[in-house]
Amino acid sequence: MLSKNQIKLIKSLAQKKYRSQHGLFTVEGLKGISEFLDSPYKLYQIYSTDAVFDVSEKDYTLISPEDLKRISQLKNPNVALAVFEIPKPKPVDSSKLIVALDDLRDPGNLGTIIRLCDWFGVEDLVCSNATVDCYNSKVVQATMGSLARVNLSYVDLKKFLSEIEYDVFGTFMDGDTIYNTTLPERGVLVMGNEANGISGSIEALVSKKLAIPRFGNLKATESLNVATATAICLSEFKRGSI
Amino acid sequence: MLSKNQIKLIKSLAQKKYRSQHGLFTVEGLKGISEFLDSPYKLYQIYSTDAVFDVSEKDYTLISPEDLKRISQLKNPNVALAVFEIPKPKPVDSSKLIVALDDLRDPGNLGTIIRLCDWFGVEDLVCSNATVDCYNSKVVQATMGSLARVNLSYVDLKKFLSEIEYDVFGTFMDGDTIYNTTLPERGVLVMGNEANGISGSIEALVSKKLAIPRFGNLKATESLNVATATAICLSEFKRGSI
Repeated sequence: MLSKNQIKLIKSLAQKKYRSQHGLFTVEGLKGISEFLDSPYKLYQIYSTDAVFDVSEKDYTLISPEDLKRISQLKNPNVALAVFEIPKPKPVDSSKLIVALDDLRDPGNLGTIIRLCDWFGVEDLVCSNATVDCYNSKVVQATMGSLARVNLSYVDLKKFLSEIEYDVFGTFMDGDTIYNTTLPERGVLVMGNEANGISGSIEALVSKKLAIPRFGNLKATESLNVATATAICLSEFKRGSI
Repeated sequence: MLSKNQIKLIKSLAQKKYRSQHGLFTVEGLKGISEFLDSPYKLYQIYSTDAVFDVSEKDYTLISPEDLKRISQLKNPNVALAVFEIPKPKPVDSSKLIVALDDLRDPGNLGTIIRLCDWFGVEDLVCSNATVDCYNSKVVQATMGSLARVNLSYVDLKKFLSEIEYDVFGTFMDGDTIYNTTLPERGVLVMGNEANGISGSIEALVSKKLAIPRFGNLKATESLNVATATAICLSEFKRGSI
């Protein structure tokens, strides 16, 4: 049974303002919740129609399917919704490869890129302050649990990059072919906004411009989706270590 | 001014059944429509709130913003909606690299993969009959015009692959590392369903199993999104020709 106040709190977490205020975010579905339970994230409470998780009784509220529907952000809620605490980001380890995002706006793209960082062993994802919030429920769903394993920091990206002692990479139409470039184990790979690419002030801080060559004919598409471009870049940065 | 019958026809094209029956599909937004006008696709009619396209008067219907809202499938309609004829697919050219999709369900993933084929110069995309329809408006939007440049065929995929004379590639956890494999200029690259991967009957027709290595730790995500996996595979197939 959920009180009106509980429902109000959980529903408010759909908005960034209230996530920041309460320091809480929601995860839905068995797989996603299990991945966060199996991580350093601190559980606040699980609301579930079924006792399917191995957590102590005080962390568990059994609710009706109607109540789940009331608090869920999904069209078809999936057994359980959990609320976790938003952790403080760990300090960025700049001795390894870092991915940085310059004002990414699409939650699906951010979720896919978090999953790619997890796959390719990139521990730090640094986002400009205007990048979509990683605790947005669409991002959390799209990461399929990878958010629990990648350290995300929201920073003044210009300031962050100006203090980096290694190379800063970015993709541009007129960059050097990524396939012919020797890529280091450390440095920052900057990926740009969906519509505008990397902004002028960030471009000025890029020390190595890369290009993903286009193989299609002259009429072919002018750009790749930012998540697929990130996939190709990370694959190139890592393939040499096999 | 739109008649009730015209509105009914255009709205019906949101469903595959009526797209097949009428042989028509819709494209929205200036960029998308321009790309289809600049392609072999045959225009049926443009419905626009503004005379922004260089087509003959008979192909053009000026409508009110209210009527555009009535026929649009978008929350925020964008100046124009065009109806084009669905073309007959061209025969598949099996002397080049082909991408084949085994029951892909997500319109956004199909759109992204069409865009990738366009970028990487893959002319033929072969889809199993259960794959999401490429004239679904969400697919058309996601392709950003690339649909006009890639030849899509819906086929009995099992029959199609059993008649292929070149190697059939697919990605599996236990395949050979894609980074260490010499990849040919011709052949078929099969990508699987979002939830289940490549199905058993199709796996039996794969002659070369590939794997994209995971660099993250043991807890890292078990799979990549199918569009990002396709990006990495196509990049590997093509990078040698630079």
